[in-house]
Amino acid sequence: MIIVMKKGADKEQLAEVKKRIRELGYKPHVIHGETRNVIGAVGDERGKSVLQTLEVMPGVESVVPILKPYKLASREVKPEPSTFDIGGGVLIGGENLVVMAGPCSVESEEQILETAHAVKAAGATVLRGGAFKPRTSPYSFQGMEEDGLKLLALAREATGLPIVTEVVNPRDVELVARYSDIMQVGARNIQNFALLKMLGRLDKPILLKRGMATTIQEFLMSAEYILAEGNRRVILCERGIRTFETATRNTLDISAVPVLKEQTHLPVVIDPSHATGHASLVPSMCYASVAAGCDGLIVEVHPHPEKAASDGPQSLRPMEFAAMMEKLRAFASVAGKKL
Amino acid sequence: MIIVMKKGADKEQLAEVKKRIRELGYKPHVIHGETRNVIGAVGDERGKSVLQTLEVMPGVESVVPILKPYKLASREVKPEPSTFDIGGGVLIGGENLVVMAGPCSVESEEQILETAHAVKAAGATVLRGGAFKPRTSPYSFQGMEEDGLKLLALAREATGLPIVTEVVNPRDVELVARYSDIMQVGARNIQNFALLKMLGRLDKPILLKRGMATTIQEFLMSAEYILAEGNRRVILCERGIRTFETATRNTLDISAVPVLKEQTHLPVVIDPSHATGHASLVPSMCYASVAAGCDGLIVEVHPHPEKAASDGPQSLRPMEFAAMMEKLRAFASVAGKKL
Amino acid sequence: MIIVMKKGADKEQLAEVKKRIRELGYKPHVIHGETRNVIGAVGDERGKSVLQTLEVMPGVESVVPILKPYKLASREVKPEPSTFDIGGGVLIGGENLVVMAGPCSVESEEQILETAHAVKAAGATVLRGGAFKPRTSPYSFQGMEEDGLKLLALAREATGLPIVTEVVNPRDVELVARYSDIMQVGARNIQNFALLKMLGRLDKPILLKRGMATTIQEFLMSAEYILAEGNRRVILCERGIRTFETATRNTLDISAVPVLKEQTHLPVVIDPSHATGHASLVPSMCYASVAAGCDGLIVEVHPHPEKAASDGPQSLRPMEFAAMMEKLRAFASVAGKKL
Amino acid sequence: MIIVMKKGADKEQLAEVKKRIRELGYKPHVIHGETRNVIGAVGDERGKSVLQTLEVMPGVESVVPILKPYKLASREVKPEPSTFDIGGGVLIGGENLVVMAGPCSVESEEQILETAHAVKAAGATVLRGGAFKPRTSPYSFQGMEEDGLKLLALAREATGLPIVTEVVNPRDVELVARYSDIMQVGARNIQNFALLKMLGRLDKPILLKRGMATTIQEFLMSAEYILAEGNRRVILCERGIRTFETATRNTLDISAVPVLKEQTHLPVVIDPSHATGHASLVPSMCYASVAAGCDGLIVEVHPHPEKAASDGPQSLRPMEFAAMMEKLRAFASVAGKKL
Repeated sequence: MIIVMKKGADKEQLAEVKKRIRELGYKPHVIHGETRNVIGAVGDERGKSVLQTLEVMPGVESVVPILKPYKLASREVKPEPSTFDIGGGVLIGGENLVVMAGPCSVESEEQILETAHAVKAAGATVLRGGAFKPRTSPYSFQGMEEDGLKLLALAREATGLPIVTEVVNPRDVELVARYSDIMQVGARNIQNFALLKMLGRLDKPILLKRGMATTIQEFLMSAEYILAEGNRRVILCERGIRTFETATRNTLDISAVPVLKEQTHLPVVIDPSHATGHASLVPSMCYASVAAGCDGLIVEVHPHPEKAASDGPQSLRPMEFAAMMEKLRAFASVAGKKL
Repeated sequence: MIIVMKKGADKEQLAEVKKRIRELGYKPHVIHGETRNVIGAVGDERGKSVLQTLEVMPGVESVVPILKPYKLASREVKPEPSTFDIGGGVLIGGENLVVMAGPCSVESEEQILETAHAVKAAGATVLRGGAFKPRTSPYSFQGMEEDGLKLLALAREATGLPIVTEVVNPRDVELVARYSDIMQVGARNIQNFALLKMLGRLDKPILLKRGMATTIQEFLMSAEYILAEGNRRVILCERGIRTFETATRNTLDISAVPVLKEQTHLPVVIDPSHATGHASLVPSMCYASVAAGCDGLIVEVHPHPEKAASDGPQSLRPMEFAAMMEKLRAFASVAGKKL
Repeated sequence: MIIVMKKGADKEQLAEVKKRIRELGYKPHVIHGETRNVIGAVGDERGKSVLQTLEVMPGVESVVPILKPYKLASREVKPEPSTFDIGGGVLIGGENLVVMAGPCSVESEEQILETAHAVKAAGATVLRGGAFKPRTSPYSFQGMEEDGLKLLALAREATGLPIVTEVVNPRDVELVARYSDIMQVGARNIQNFALLKMLGRLDKPILLKRGMATTIQEFLMSAEYILAEGNRRVILCERGIRTFETATRNTLDISAVPVLKEQTHLPVVIDPSHATGHASLVPSMCYASVAAGCDGLIVEVHPHPEKAASDGPQSLRPMEFAAMMEKLRAFASVAGKKL
Repeated sequence: MIIVMKKGADKEQLAEVKKRIRELGYKPHVIHGETRNVIGAVGDERGKSVLQTLEVMPGVESVVPILKPYKLASREVKPEPSTFDIGGGVLIGGENLVVMAGPCSVESEEQILETAHAVKAAGATVLRGGAFKPRTSPYSFQGMEEDGLKLLALAREATGLPIVTEVVNPRDVELVARYSDIMQVGARNIQNFALLKMLGRLDKPILLKRGMATTIQEFLMSAEYILAEGNRRVILCERGIRTFETATRNTLDISAVPVLKEQTHLPVVIDPSHATGHASLVPSMCYASVAAGCDGLIVEVHPHPEKAASDGPQSLRPMEFAAMMEKLRAFASVAGKKL
């Protein structure tokens, strides 16, 4: 933390601030500038947020944090990228490119089996599907719940694909864990810390979706909640942020890929379906994401998008998905990834 | 819903879209324009979101929603503003201006009692204080939990002020309800639908905080989750939205007050402390909010902001709060509100 | 500037950075932290942006600016608020509350005269009206240009109200200055530095509108462009920023009022018409702005909004404006302002 | 335009709105819904923005635009992609991938010549360099102006590369046109309509940069200003939009590529340097942009970024640029583009 003093701050004010810094367990280090003084507080980095309160002291103009508050998620603690098993021998991280695909919602046995076989044939290695659906409107379809989980398990049995599905309520963590290989935290729950802590105690990989208004630093702090409880298998998922632009559902923050790759060892996955909201935009965003260096994609595929219970407009048809995968292979190869 | 056809869409495509609209239970009504056709879908308004999937049909350019998806929260269902008891005979809505004040976190018996007496003396009618704290960092103070609730109850006993406190985990709803008069849903939980549904079944008023990236329409849809379960005592709280501006912690969306007043009968409260993040900006935002027509304020007050466990920089000292209240009375009077 | 070194940066890298800081004319001051070093650069504040390039040097993690880059606009250079004449003896700043009102566009002699008389009768002290209109679409009405300026001058003669009107092209500065009392810079031209510099050489007050995506710091830097050329009569105008919210045309950043009041001596005016985009929201935003401490308002008024050539939906009718002014007087009185 | 009537609107109100629609030259077409009526206005699409004013009529709830307001820029008017010469026989559009590279600012003969030779050797086909620099601070380097243009011309002579450079003042259009092959409009001037109109009358290609808060629709309307004056050689450039995220200078809106490709025939170029603000992020964003389907890149390259007069942190060194180009070739090949 850097404490910037006001231009006219006097000696007593400076002394008081230095005293308070020492009380909080840090060593003050004053730089005497031309028009004002600034103080560096030296000490344990993680607890430094308590220094923010110095802002209210007389003579203080502002308190400027200069260090990242996360630790376990950082490259400084673990310089090499994390690679781990996410179910059924599928690896994520390093040279592996993982494509997760399936419908937004599980709707019926026929629908999920048809989709699972189709995405597997096209090269996907994980099946996605929602059983608990957080919906903006209480009058919209809320998911098949446990019945949906059972159908996902059935599809896994039929195809061998591990499954990723969302958990929205801490109460359901155990239930969802019983059926799924990867537990998904949705964008709306990025700061549902009660949920994150419970998932941190599981022995399952977690797919953590960035919230619509979550900064990259906050995103890593949410990952830190899971890591700090002992679960080191966290997959970060960028799925678009909310901006002023309305041509797309959200704005895909593609530069989050290289930014995250610099700051963290955790694998990074892109969700182009929620990011764009329109199926026609999905393939080019898949190519771009892989070229940018991501470790995986999660893509919505539905056999009949015009009849989907949710997110129809952004779902690829199986044939469109297969065509996309075909071209993706070539981009992956240039990017140095195995698909 | 208005379905806009592409410029070159042919008769068969138009016929297919009309057919699908009928299958979904609506009546299609075509307007033949100069360069393209548009179709209005007539029928029950609330279920219309299913029509969005028509976007993927051949010949369709876009699907434009024209109606609001909420119902119980709307002025159309209940034209007159809601007024209700929020504990200890305190009324919110109509001519009543409610000021809720207290520390961000409950830290000790001494701190909460000192603050409670001070804010009561200055004219606050509800005591706020956090016992469960959702914090961005797992390494920050997370609240005193049940011990904090007990101290709040003690402060209520000592001052007669009803208390508002946050619940973050569906598991703790019953526990928090046992101690508090008003249950607060924080900005991070605005779309924690599991939590909202549980609160909808309580017989307690709910203070629902808008999320950092929540549109007003989504805000009302979240209120609708609570209302739809039977609990009609929902208080909406604007607390700043996330924008590109960094001079303030968030950007207070003051125009949300008249917008909400046009669209809903629910009372609207402003939180200038979280919106601005700096104590020096809080008083003027209190005045502005009351002039804009809000029904209440929720303000952070701490006897020693420089020693606060959380949110020190945005907390008023008791004397500053008292001075603000003094001037607020005059603004409230012009606004036609009783304080 | 604070230069943050990477965790593993070695002595040579530190030495190189210190050397480069000296070459740029600053004195390096190292703080040795627990896990990394940071360097403060001491010297003339205004030129410090050149230090930003140190970011590319080996061993440097980031470069953090800690000081404001503007000078003439700041309270540090001029602690007391600026008060000045804006035409016809009308003062802005200090205890004076100035209300500027009139149509978005000048459309006809009848329209501007009718409006000018009406807003004067209601208490406005400046007449607004656009003659050069920057419009998003090339197919929209672009203003009456010089004919519009002549009609504004006619309305000034008839009512005695000084006039404020926008200039969009550096080429027209002289022409617009010939007719107007206050020169307006629109939101789209906030960083049209060629225009700002020319206006800095005029002896006329300038109403500078914040851009849709302009931070408060950038806003003050644009004011600095005018001030640095010698013109000290700059009026800052907040008119809403662009956010994700669509219920309003823009989001009125009301907290910009107290933030600007802390940082600058320049008067601050609010434009609730462009901020909200809807006439029904304008009166409450006028009250809020005055309660927040602004020095003036600029409000769109049109005798027949449903026939306006531009911005009809956000224009008050003369009767609505008069009713708003009536109530505004009471709020202004509490705020300690003369209207 | 769709005019949505209020729930309780009566027959007279409906009749008045229909009458006003006819007065404005459109045919009203009423759809009688279950709870309210909506009116479609049929007629010439481009002038429909005048219908927005109906919002203020009694009984009207809202006015919803359903069509795009641009014409010449649209795929409807010109379905096939535009391909044109941008100087020295270099083509943009179709299968051609154009890489423009060079320093942010022209600083000296040595600097521009060294850079021009280096980027040419690496495969760039256009040289970029700023002579007129719009800078946030009046105290920052403002460019070499005409001397800079002369140095660019010298570099063109030496290398054969056509040059692209920015014009910021309508007054300088002729001067800049005398030296440059492509005229660049910067993000700050995206709605400087006086400048756009002048450029519309030139016989030079225009590189039009999207503003920081410009929607894609507004971006195309700005292009329309140029096209409507007769100049059909407009190149659209996405360079990042302003969001809440601070890890990057702006947020690269990569999905703008496929969105623009659907809506317009104009070529689309990406500027990853301004979008990210950090050189280390530039290569991966180049790869992603090409994979997404863009027609070109504009990249900042400087022989000594740590000594650059502007934008040093985001400039690649010549060797880094050459390495990026090497890998880019493979991605371009998969994307079906010639580099």
